[in-house]
Amino acid sequence: MTRISTKSNVTTLINVFTVEPANQQRLIELLTEATEVSIREAPGFVSASLHRSTDGTKVTMYAQWLSMEHYQAMRRDPAPLPFFQEALKIARFEPGVYEIVRTFAPKPRDLLG
Amino acid sequence: MTRISTKSNVTTLINVFTVEPANQQRLIELLTEATEVSIREAPGFVSASLHRSTDGTKVTMYAQWLSMEHYQAMRRDPAPLPFFQEALKIARFEPGVYEIVRTFAPKPRDLLG
Repeated sequence: MTRISTKSNVTTLINVFTVEPANQQRLIELLTEATEVSIREAPGFVSASLHRSTDGTKVTMYAQWLSMEHYQAMRRDPAPLPFFQEALKIARFEPGVYEIVRTFAPKPRDLLG
Repeated sequence: MTRISTKSNVTTLINVFTVEPANQQRLIELLTEATEVSIREAPGFVSASLHRSTDGTKVTMYAQWLSMEHYQAMRRDPAPLPFFQEALKIARFEPGVYEIVRTFAPKPRDLLG
């Protein structure tokens, strides 16, 4: 499970892959393999959540790291490269590095904090 | 706080706004106001998390709804429209509707579930 909170003090990467619907499942498999063989074992990795767009055209990875330096160190690991290279044959990739501004809960629940 | 989990059975909207860095803070204010005046009160709204890219060029809203129908009903509310219209004067907008494929935790924590 991933928790998004302003208190968690993580670096967030939201990477949006655009893909032909026929290749969406293959892209999901490649990103899953890259995460399993390498990313989950990397120091500073907090969590990742893989999302499939219902129209078939996107796959988005929402990932949390303790710091940008931890993420960059993982990128120097050659183990996941074959999966990323394969993924970029079938998908375009729009990366983003973020911090949380704030989170919003439904209004009636406010009193419960 | 937002929880991302395959068990939560929500519809996820990940909307990536691209903006000039000089307008990033204004865009954050407009999306915050839209969320405060309308979205938080809408039936079926679960959570939203607003993200600011560290390079200044993006703002991404990660939102969870009970269903796509709930989200579409909110879009018929005129209250947040002025904020969205103002936002689209300064930003491009790439929407996506998703389901969670899976989440990944760091490997040493596997035994703790």
